[in-house]
Formats: sequence, C-alpha cells, structure tokens
Amino acid sequence: MPAHVVVVGGGFAGLYAARGLARAPVRITLVDRRNHHLFQPLLYQVATAALNPGDIAEPIRHVLSRQRNARVLLAEGAAVEPDARRLRLADGLALDYDYLVLAAGATHSYFGHDEWSRFAPGLKTLEDAEEIRRRVLTAFERAEADPDRQRREALLTFVVIGGGPTGVELAGALAEIARYTIPRDFRTVATERARVILVEGNDRVLPALPPSLSAAAQRDLERLGVHVWTGKRVTGVDPRGVQIGEERVAARTVLWAAGVAGAPLARTLGVPLDAAGRVLVNPDLTVPGHEEIYVVGDLAAARKRSGEPIPGVAPAAIQQGKHAARNLVATLRGRPRTPFVYFDKGVMATVGRGRAVAGFWRIRMTGILAWFAWLFIHIWFLVDFRNRAAVMFQWLWHYLTFKRGTRLILETPEEERFRAVVGVAPPDLDGWPPNESDTERIVA
Amino acid sequence: MPAHVVVVGGGFAGLYAARGLARAPVRITLVDRRNHHLFQPLLYQVATAALNPGDIAEPIRHVLSRQRNARVLLAEGAAVEPDARRLRLADGLALDYDYLVLAAGATHSYFGHDEWSRFAPGLKTLEDAEEIRRRVLTAFERAEADPDRQRREALLTFVVIGGGPTGVELAGALAEIARYTIPRDFRTVATERARVILVEGNDRVLPALPPSLSAAAQRDLERLGVHVWTGKRVTGVDPRGVQIGEERVAARTVLWAAGVAGAPLARTLGVPLDAAGRVLVNPDLTVPGHEEIYVVGDLAAARKRSGEPIPGVAPAAIQQGKHAARNLVATLRGRPRTPFVYFDKGVMATVGRGRAVAGFWRIRMTGILAWFAWLFIHIWFLVDFRNRAAVMFQWLWHYLTFKRGTRLILETPEEERFRAVVGVAPPDLDGWPPNESDTERIVA
Repeated sequence: MPAHVVVVGGGFAGLYAARGLARAPVRITLVDRRNHHLFQPLLYQVATAALNPGDIAEPIRHVLSRQRNARVLLAEGAAVEPDARRLRLADGLALDYDYLVLAAGATHSYFGHDEWSRFAPGLKTLEDAEEIRRRVLTAFERAEADPDRQRREALLTFVVIGGGPTGVELAGALAEIARYTIPRDFRTVATERARVILVEGNDRVLPALPPSLSAAAQRDLERLGVHVWTGKRVTGVDPRGVQIGEERVAARTVLWAAGVAGAPLARTLGVPLDAAGRVLVNPDLTVPGHEEIYVVGDLAAARKRSGEPIPGVAPAAIQQGKHAARNLVATLRGRPRTPFVYFDKGVMATVGRGRAVAGFWRIRMTGILAWFAWLFIHIWFLVDFRNRAAVMFQWLWHYLTFKRGTRLILETPEEERFRAVVGVAPPDLDGWPPNESDTERIVA
Repeated sequence: MPAHVVVVGGGFAGLYAARGLARAPVRITLVDRRNHHLFQPLLYQVATAALNPGDIAEPIRHVLSRQRNARVLLAEGAAVEPDARRLRLADGLALDYDYLVLAAGATHSYFGHDEWSRFAPGLKTLEDAEEIRRRVLTAFERAEADPDRQRREALLTFVVIGGGPTGVELAGALAEIARYTIPRDFRTVATERARVILVEGNDRVLPALPPSLSAAAQRDLERLGVHVWTGKRVTGVDPRGVQIGEERVAARTVLWAAGVAGAPLARTLGVPLDAAGRVLVNPDLTVPGHEEIYVVGDLAAARKRSGEPIPGVAPAAIQQGKHAARNLVATLRGRPRTPFVYFDKGVMATVGRGRAVAGFWRIRMTGILAWFAWLFIHIWFLVDFRNRAAVMFQWLWHYLTFKRGTRLILETPEEERFRAVVGVAPPDLDGWPPNESDTERIVA
C-alpha cells in the first residue's frame, strides 16, 4: 500500500507539493475548503473591476485531473493530531496520513481589532475581491444619486490601510478607474474628484523593498492622484470612516491591506509559532519533532540564509512546495533531506495600468519597462496550468480594453432575501446611514 | 425645458426604449436596482458553469454613456403616484416625470408557496445563476467526500421544476456537465451517474411551442440521460427533496423554472393586472387612463393580433421598448399613437451543447442546425452593444473549451462570516443535514 500523503491547501505551495509527487510511490489527498486555486497576485484586479473572478482562478480538481495518484476533496482541516497521524476535518470526517503537508496559507490580521473586519474588508480570497468591488462600484453609484454634497464627498473618499504591495496596487488601481475608466459613464458626479488615501505606519510605502523603489512607487501613486500618508497609524474604523490619531476621515469605503496571520489550523500542531501565527519550521521545512509533517507557503516562517524572513510571495510558496516534495521523496528512498534555499527572483508591484516598480538582484526597474516585466512574469506563472496562448490573449484583451463585464455589482444573499421578504431595497447593510429625509427631489 | 422621461428597468425593454429616444427632445433618467444589463437567455449557462457572469452582463451606464440626453441611477422604484406624476424610490428620493416607461420585468412565482424559494432557487438574475452554480458544484464536491451511499445518491440527484424553455435548457446543461465535462476531475464519484429529473405539469415539455418541437426536445433530453416527468405537479419542496403527489424524491439540488409574476411596482399603478400580476396595457402600450405611462417587456400583458399572449422573450421586449419610444415621440409631435404589432421571429430552446429546437413561421428546425441558428442569433442580439468580433471570439472560446474558470464555488457572505466567527466550516446553510458520525474514516 503506497504511503498516504495529505496536502492541506490548494494554493501555490500545496499544488506544487502535490505535483512534485506525481511520480512518487504515494497516494495524495489534497484538501481545500474552496474548490479553486487562486492566482492571488492578480486579486486586486478583480477587486478593482479590471478582471473577472474566473480569469484568475481554476478548479483545483481540474488542475490535478490528469495526476492519477492525486485526488481532491472539498473539505476544511479543523485540527491535526500529530501523534495519531490524523487530520480531523470540519465536517466530522478524518483523514489518516503517513505524511502531511500543511499549506493552508495566511488570513487577515486586524491587530487585535477583529471588529474592524466588517467595515474594512481585506483582500485574500475571491469573495473578498467581489466584496470590495461591490463596495467600490456602489460608492460611485450612490454618489451619482445623492443630492447632499457632504455625503457625496464621503462616498467618493476611499481609504486603503497598509502600504505594502497589496495596498499600493489597490490604491493605484482605484485612482485609475476613478480618473480614466468610468468618468464618462456618470452625469452628475465627477468621479475624477474621488479621493484615494493610502495610509502606511512606516515612514515609506513598500517598506520591505529598497528605498529607491519606495520613492518611485510614491511618485507614481501621487501622479495618479493618490494621497500617500506615511508615518500614520489607523486607530479606529467604523461605518462612516477612519480615525487616524486625532484626525478623522469620512469615507464610505475603507479597505484593509495591513496585516496577515497564519491559518488557525497551525495552532493545533502544538509547536512554536511566530508572532503572526506562522510555524517555525526546520530548515528542511519539516516541523520540530515530526519529520513526517511539512509546512510550506505563507503558513511557514522560513528564513533566507541571510536570516531575513522569506516574503509571502508566490515564487516563495512555489519553491517551498517543490522542495517539500523533493525532501519527502528523499525520505521515501532512505536518503537525507536538504535545507530549503530561497532563490529570490525579485519583487514587483504595479502602480496603475502602466507603471510598476521591480527589483531583481541589483537591477532596479521602474515605469513602463517594469510594468511589462511584471505583466509577462505573471502570465508565465499563471499559465503554467493552462493553455498559454489562450490565456495570454484573453488576459491582455481584458486588461487593455478595460473589460466592461467586470464592473458588475452583484447583491449579497442577505440583500436579496431582505428585498424578497420586505419588498423594498434593504438599508445599506454595510452600516452606512440611510437617507434621512423623505421625498427629496433629485435636482434634475 | 425638455420633457423628463423616467424609464424603470435596464433590461431589453427599458434599454431599447431609452435608446429609441436618443434624438428626441427629452431628458431621460433610467433607473434600475442593479447596475448591469443582463442578457437573460444565456443566464442558464452561468448557472451551469459554462460562462462567467461578466460574459453576459454589461453596466447599464456604459451602454448609455454616449447618449447625452440619458443618465442612469442605481435605485429601486417603490411606488408610482400617477396623479402627481411622480415615481417614489426605495431610498426616500423621488423622481418627477412627464412620461414614465415601466419596464421592471418579472420575478419568480412559487404559486403561493413562497417558502419554497429558499430550497428551490429560480433563475432570473446573475445572483440566482451564481447561487445555482454554487449549489450544483457543491453537490458534486460533497458526493466525492461522502462515504454514505444513500446520501451520495441524493447529492447526485437534481430536480428541475418546470418544463418551459428555462427548465429544458437547465436540465439539458446539468446532464451534460455531469456526463461530459467533469467526470475526469473526480475520483470516487462517477458523476455520469447523476440523475437529472425534469418535472412538468402539462402533458409535454415546452407547452407553448408546437407539439413536434416538444417531442424533439424530449427526445434530445432523454438522449442526454434526463428523466422527463410530464403530467406531474410538485406538491412540496424541502431541504431534502421534493414531493410529487404520493411520490418522494430525495434530492439535494432543486431548481425552480416554473412560474413568473410581474414586478410588485405594477400594483401601485392602480390599474387592472392579469393573474400573473402583469399590466393589461392598451394596444398602443399605454396604461388605461394614463397616456403618459407606458408598460413594456415582461411586465406588460400584451397580446398578438391573433389574441394570443405575447411570450416573455427578448425579441418581444425589444420590440415593445422601441414601439413605446416611437409612440412617445409621436405624442410629442402632436401625432397619433399606433398599436403595437408583434413580429414573431420564432422561438428556440437549446438542449445541451449541440442540440436545439427552433421554429420560425412554418420552418421547424431541430438538432445541430437549430443549435447553430440559436448560437448566431444570440450572439447577434448580445453584440448589439459591444464589439462583435471580440465578443464572438470570446464567447465561442469559452463555450467550446468548457472554460474552466467558470466552475468556481464562491462562498456566500453568511458562510464567510460563520467561518470567521466560529472558526470552523458552517453547517450546510441550505438545510442539508450535517454528517452525524464523528471521526468517520474516508475509505481510501
């Protein structure tokens, strides 16, 4: 009976671990609480209505459909029982494993203020992206219909909390659609006057990148009209805006891009975690005391040889997934495991549609060149799973023509049900106060 | 000051009414509670994971962005006050009009059993389509992970209630993905063994079409493996299945395609409605007693010259919208209005990916030929708003390659929130009973 390898998570780390075992004498069960693999680097484009969810995700079981020693289960890991070598699932089932690869990723961290999550969604899943898209587009729609100038200004104010790559990309994309994509569609509201504010606690955006790239990104953001507030921390978030120390900003749309935390499943391992809840793995990616358990991807607190932490980026997850598979095969063959060495292929972040910052070793690229590099590298990663020509055409077409089918507002089921039961439109369930006066005329 | 025309509804009828007034000396405000125009004939393809929502919808304000005398508001009509010539909106605002075009469409009717709506979703909106897609894909996923044979069979049983075009198309598409699209992605479950049952109260499916076409459709459905139950009425719907008289069918997924009702807004007009809640309009599409109010599309109970009711299909809505605009312009010029004459361009329904039934005048087409006719006519209608070459390529590509990005399961916000608060997967909120035993092993 071949060894049973259970992989938790169908993101980059988990998928590449599973694929790396395609020829090994094992049976693989890959478990994910969602049915699709998500290309997270492009998630902000779904959030800002430049791409559809279907453009950046693919059913996991389709990715692995040809790998005969692998099967996929839609299920959620609830707890690991390392001594029993069992993974308990949320619905009561359990999986016995010989080897376990934990690639469950990271989730949002609100620094102890979980109540902010209702007012300031983060961007980790497709559902997040659709929620953000819904809020952003609805803000413009409400501004178009609202006769009150003060409320309109709050509706046209967008605050992005967190100046890492996600926050920078979100803020740039928001400013861009307000300025270039949608103004012609509106009559009353001048969407170009939308205010996008990016708030970062450190003294520069992209604090994990070289300072020259931070400066270039800030310049590009400001050229797009984004207000970049560095050295400021958000102290409160509510339905009407944010509190930044003494200062208050009235904003209908607040987005969270500031903190991540390891998936809760890691706590059940019974091994030390770092401050963000990530597993302090051995250099060979196994868990201290359990050679048969690997942790890879965003859930692992792995380090470069220099001692610096490895960033939570797609290439790192891919490399770790592959390396875990290699080490597992080595163990099956009675050979020793090897430590993981991160090959830093560089970092990139886009700023709007035609600018980016990128650093590869000593090369620093900015502007249009960096943007093209970013474009092709992302398509390369993405299409490793699909037909390249088809996806490249499709993606470029979508992107360059500001694909209109992406700017859809779909109601949440709560709103649908409210409408069906009560018969009128629901109050703004995000908490935005309803219009107080009755039969106000719209100035024609 | 030009006359103010308010159009309620951005579907085919409302949009074509607004466009028909592009050169008229009027100001137009088009109001819709959603921001997008939806190509409903292809909705069942989003529901069965063949197309993305973005492929069949477009923001209304983009469709009208170049029409300078038209503006779009995201708002919901709550009540018409015909004597005051005012439309009250759900959020408290109001619009004064000189002319009103009501094109608010139809919604689901559960024949007095509104409680069934929670267990048997219908298919009228993109949200409906995504909900159905989610339920269908989740049913297969759960079957893959469930060791209990009886539960698996119920999970693999799909009941479609209503044998009109929507039901026929849904049932055919469901059988097709179970048989041809997804079997290779699954290991434990043989999805080809899924049972799709189409229940119709009349003695034949497609009762509004000629009997020869009904017979052809039934043949094609059965060839796909659909069980067609005519002459049967559903008497109960619950989370575990349906009751059909004495008989009970255990089914996890039940879809409603059986009845429509006019939008509730029509009741506030104070004029006679038919049994389905549609407005009994004058031959010129105005409302009795109010020459300045038009009702068009699915909300209007208009009749052909033969006396037969006009079907709720896209061409009828388009023609009525255009005719209302023509009559409105005539009134502005002091000329008489003309009665609406429906030009019956024929009816079509597809059965799976390569078959259809179609009737134009005396021509009856079935099989592959009809399917191609259906294909091109639908693309023609759809692309009236967009770049034809681009959309035709994109749509054909998606359709012919069973675009995988469409087979995504996205959680509802309720489930997301449950998971975030409680920390485990939510019980199946559709009502499906949770797995009773604890730590059951999955037979590897």
